[in-house]
Amino acid sequence: MTPQASAEATRDRIVNAATAEFSRHGIAGARIDRIAKAAKTSKERVYAYFRSKEDLYRFVSGRELTAVAEATRMDPADLPGYAGRIHDYFTAHPERHRLMAWGQLELGPDETPDDDPVRQTMARKTEQLRAAQESGDLDPGWDPLDVLVLVNQIATSWANQPDLAAGVPPQERAAYLAARRATVVTAVQRLFPAVQAPSGEER
Amino acid sequence: MTPQASAEATRDRIVNAATAEFSRHGIAGARIDRIAKAAKTSKERVYAYFRSKEDLYRFVSGRELTAVAEATRMDPADLPGYAGRIHDYFTAHPERHRLMAWGQLELGPDETPDDDPVRQTMARKTEQLRAAQESGDLDPGWDPLDVLVLVNQIATSWANQPDLAAGVPPQERAAYLAARRATVVTAVQRLFPAVQAPSGEER
Repeated sequence: MTPQASAEATRDRIVNAATAEFSRHGIAGARIDRIAKAAKTSKERVYAYFRSKEDLYRFVSGRELTAVAEATRMDPADLPGYAGRIHDYFTAHPERHRLMAWGQLELGPDETPDDDPVRQTMARKTEQLRAAQESGDLDPGWDPLDVLVLVNQIATSWANQPDLAAGVPPQERAAYLAARRATVVTAVQRLFPAVQAPSGEER
Repeated sequence: MTPQASAEATRDRIVNAATAEFSRHGIAGARIDRIAKAAKTSKERVYAYFRSKEDLYRFVSGRELTAVAEATRMDPADLPGYAGRIHDYFTAHPERHRLMAWGQLELGPDETPDDDPVRQTMARKTEQLRAAQESGDLDPGWDPLDVLVLVNQIATSWANQPDLAAGVPPQERAAYLAARRATVVTAVQRLFPAVQAPSGEER
């Protein structure tokens, strides 16, 4: 391994360990020495790559924001499908919802820079929704920011449940989970109907 | 002041100081010595009233749960009005939403006892909704638990914004805040229409 490849591998291990640590303990609760240990490196190395614990958190949460956006792809003409994908994503990865939730609680708006990835993502999506309203793909009666926030709130209704089907008998779990998902999609469909029925993988 | 009145006053100061401390820092981040200092008492006194930091958190969050339930009174025949009251409550007291949000993140379901007040409140409200479905006051097509979770998610859409109208020019703030509230009420109205138009204070 070249020195550069080795440095990159170390950085990757730090980012992965930090993702797990922040998801579990939040920002204030995370310990850089635990991250260093899990990444098989030293505290000093961690601080060489990321100036502070907050910087490291901002990096991993920004990476997660990109990952969820890519995995769920907002389609303003099919918001029910989008909500279903968000639901699926966080049902499969509840720890990633936790990772983002800590930042919402621990980083106040005063500490949030204007180039904050959450703000930028929201601004970009709001513009997408506004364009869909202009082209007739979305009811123009709503404020686009309200649409974005409502869809997100509904889609993450069950994201705070680490084991959504806990206590449900095994033979009923699949039906139970399908019903929870259907609620999310139906609610968004009633508020923001898809312009045309989504045709499977083609949308 | 009698010894008993003095002990009660101390306990009240502890509970109030703990509410502020947990709201700001969460459970792991809260410090009993800061709570003791703010309550003008000793760490030992705090532990004499509440066995552990988690017990103290459970007490203050249980108290808050009662307060929000009393302030917002769920009416299954007028869920839009209920959602508006939840929105108003957390717009006026964003720190109380933070207080509850920490518990959701920090207390896993494994650590949640069956007599947990959140669970009990949800079970009671779900029963109220089920009864309303039976009496024709609420669309029986939804699972009552889904109704409860959806209404709550929509009603708290803006609760994570410590200053909801930040950046809005002063002369536009009232209209801005009214529009955010109207979105919440309208969304719930479209999903779960009130059985009859609410008539002011009479409902």
